[in-house]
Amino acid sequence: MMERREISRAVIERLPRYYRYLDELLEEGVERISSGELSRRMQVTASQIRQDLNHFGGFGQQGYGYHVPYLYEEIGKILGVDRRQNMIIIGSGNLGHAIANYANFERRGFIVRGMFDIRPELIGTSVRGIQIRAMDELEDFIRENDIQIAAVTLPKTHAPEIADRLVRAGIKGIWNFAHTDLTVPPGVVVENVHLSESLMRLSYRVRSMEDGGQGSAD
Amino acid sequence: MMERREISRAVIERLPRYYRYLDELLEEGVERISSGELSRRMQVTASQIRQDLNHFGGFGQQGYGYHVPYLYEEIGKILGVDRRQNMIIIGSGNLGHAIANYANFERRGFIVRGMFDIRPELIGTSVRGIQIRAMDELEDFIRENDIQIAAVTLPKTHAPEIADRLVRAGIKGIWNFAHTDLTVPPGVVVENVHLSESLMRLSYRVRSMEDGGQGSAD
Repeated sequence: MMERREISRAVIERLPRYYRYLDELLEEGVERISSGELSRRMQVTASQIRQDLNHFGGFGQQGYGYHVPYLYEEIGKILGVDRRQNMIIIGSGNLGHAIANYANFERRGFIVRGMFDIRPELIGTSVRGIQIRAMDELEDFIRENDIQIAAVTLPKTHAPEIADRLVRAGIKGIWNFAHTDLTVPPGVVVENVHLSESLMRLSYRVRSMEDGGQGSAD
Repeated sequence: MMERREISRAVIERLPRYYRYLDELLEEGVERISSGELSRRMQVTASQIRQDLNHFGGFGQQGYGYHVPYLYEEIGKILGVDRRQNMIIIGSGNLGHAIANYANFERRGFIVRGMFDIRPELIGTSVRGIQIRAMDELEDFIRENDIQIAAVTLPKTHAPEIADRLVRAGIKGIWNFAHTDLTVPPGVVVENVHLSESLMRLSYRVRSMEDGGQGSAD
């Protein structure tokens, strides 16, 4: 595998999208694809594709195109989806349920082992075979089940306190849906999904389109 | 108001986060804040803040700091959240319910007028007062209720066809949660929330942290 350190943040941000397209190509039974054809599908320039995939050390042979299964596998390794990762979901509201029900995550190796909630009436019930547990079981469960990732779907008032507990119990990655930023020590990463902010970006782009712009500020 | 055209995409991407912090400051009753104090709260450099907010034409007076209510209002105008925007949700699964139940969007002027689903048993029921309707009412509802934005929470197989119908009925912005890219004509914008890709970015960062990196590739 090539030197991952050399891949820029911008390329990393784009890798999951490449992975998704490669997955679709595999489903269609496509073995090789040229940068030109991939460019047409993904609606990015062929030179951008060549530049991005160059980081992977010459998978694309001149005149032969990219070998789809190999590229898919290598990008999967970089993204860490070539191995099983245990996950829990904190909060079993609609968003927690949506994540628990999203079977596609399992194909990527993310296995939801448990859900946690404070509402007594939900504890003991389950979602797609995943049991909802009481918050006081949290630390033991994380340790006993080798949990690396926690999805936090809580109101912003509760999220920071729970994040602290998750970190102390050994969680390495927090997938944060709470409408607040979480502070974590070095060695732990937070990936935010701030839906309000996403909706405001959409709103900005709609507005700037109405004003005769291009819907973005590039 | 200043020239919006001059604001770069990167700054626009950061504006919703500023807006969120300014909102919190207002809730705390803070009227003025220095770039240094805002820097400490937001964990970005003071020079980044000065650079970003400079686009707003000197709100921050040397020695006085930023006037929070004014900055909040001006950023709100740019984001288009100073006016009411009518929205619908396509798909009333867990994700559709999560969006419908998120009252915070209303504070930003986004009003969910209706939800749509193909499942007969759900049609006619409602979520927080929002009625679930049949898909064949879609076009008329959009036109009669001045709907600008549609959140699409559908499997990827159905999303492109529905996106076409939304566009033909006059929708200006699609908030896309389907695991696929949507092709729309000029004049319509798509903002994607690809949860799988977000989870893979988290996974990458956890993995690179384990390998002794910084959890990102900056």
